[in-house]
Amino acid sequence: MTTPLDLTPQFAIIVAGGSGNRMGTSVPKQFLPVGGVPILMHTLTRFFEYSPAVQLILVLPQKDQSVWEKLCERHHFQLPLKIVAGGATRFQSVKQGLAAIEAAEGLVAIHDGVRPFVPVHTIRESFEVAYQGNGAVAAVALKDSIRLVTPDGTNQSMDRTQFRLIQTPQTFRLPVIRKSFEQPEQSSFTDDASVVESDGNPVTLIEGSYQNIKITTPEDLVWAEAYLKLMS
Amino acid sequence: MTTPLDLTPQFAIIVAGGSGNRMGTSVPKQFLPVGGVPILMHTLTRFFEYSPAVQLILVLPQKDQSVWEKLCERHHFQLPLKIVAGGATRFQSVKQGLAAIEAAEGLVAIHDGVRPFVPVHTIRESFEVAYQGNGAVAAVALKDSIRLVTPDGTNQSMDRTQFRLIQTPQTFRLPVIRKSFEQPEQSSFTDDASVVESDGNPVTLIEGSYQNIKITTPEDLVWAEAYLKLMS
Repeated sequence: MTTPLDLTPQFAIIVAGGSGNRMGTSVPKQFLPVGGVPILMHTLTRFFEYSPAVQLILVLPQKDQSVWEKLCERHHFQLPLKIVAGGATRFQSVKQGLAAIEAAEGLVAIHDGVRPFVPVHTIRESFEVAYQGNGAVAAVALKDSIRLVTPDGTNQSMDRTQFRLIQTPQTFRLPVIRKSFEQPEQSSFTDDASVVESDGNPVTLIEGSYQNIKITTPEDLVWAEAYLKLMS
Repeated sequence: MTTPLDLTPQFAIIVAGGSGNRMGTSVPKQFLPVGGVPILMHTLTRFFEYSPAVQLILVLPQKDQSVWEKLCERHHFQLPLKIVAGGATRFQSVKQGLAAIEAAEGLVAIHDGVRPFVPVHTIRESFEVAYQGNGAVAAVALKDSIRLVTPDGTNQSMDRTQFRLIQTPQTFRLPVIRKSFEQPEQSSFTDDASVVESDGNPVTLIEGSYQNIKITTPEDLVWAEAYLKLMS
């Protein structure tokens, strides 16, 4: 059955601007292999699994593009995608990604290149909720307690049930996010939702998942290898 | 070289009151095997590795104690420890653990039974900082963005650099924590540090580590198996 959502142009901007700094490697973390395949290819494949109709925009630093091409050859990776050069910050990178979309209307999911285990049902829900109106932001409850560290160096316990850890995808209507990204960049823009919100548009939190980790540290890579084996 | 800290009586209360609810198992999660050995045995061993002089107090629900004894027999697990019946809440369980310590002076680390990968250097630092005066609480920076969910259902972006995720151990001077646990229990007591703090004692955050996870969900168990293999 074809739904109104199916008839809406859908895009995904995959932001892959990370370095290997916190990973302790010289290879950008999105290129590190998990199960023998670069993380970024896993991530892009999730969106293709959701729907081959989603148009993929990969935002990658200029300097990493030739390596990416070689990796694609070696791994016979042939998903149709548009590659865009990243900017100096995430805000600039997403802005570049948006500029590469020609359609005036539709929905766009923005997703971290190093979150290869996003469940397909989460991608689907994020598009569905964004289609209803508000931006959709994947989020999970905290497992650990949390403290606020104040500028004077002291810290205080907070109620963790009032907080959510934010993941991606973060999915929006194209005209809304386009307008939001016309604002000057601010240091308070911690993610794409905060940009959209700062322009007066509320966002809706959807249930993310603990498997949807952002691969950041060597511990995460260990987990990713194990999780992939379990899934296959 | 013997330091003043070495001459101070040191205790560790290991709190193991968890169910298997979020894990989807009927076995309490602290008894689930990682590398073939129950999680709780890994955790207790970390403290023994830090120092065989640390006196271990294991707080375990009464109903789980016979299973624990059988597990100890099967795994030839013979670390010297005092077993105390847990209470209905973490606050009550820690209070029971404290009541089992006869010494008037000294230091006590409180640690989650399901954090088996706490580095020995973190345990050491927590005792050292607690010896200096303030309570010592292991904490790490957030990898994800964070949002505050308000009671009216809306949510707002927060600056994640102002927050820390709280781990254990949380280590205190015995007289300080004893007095703090004489307070009536409050719902705002999210961890042991919040109890001590509520009694007017500041705590110091020390650097925790991303390997020091609290095994809570099936994803965590996958990670634990992989991490243990990597370490061995």
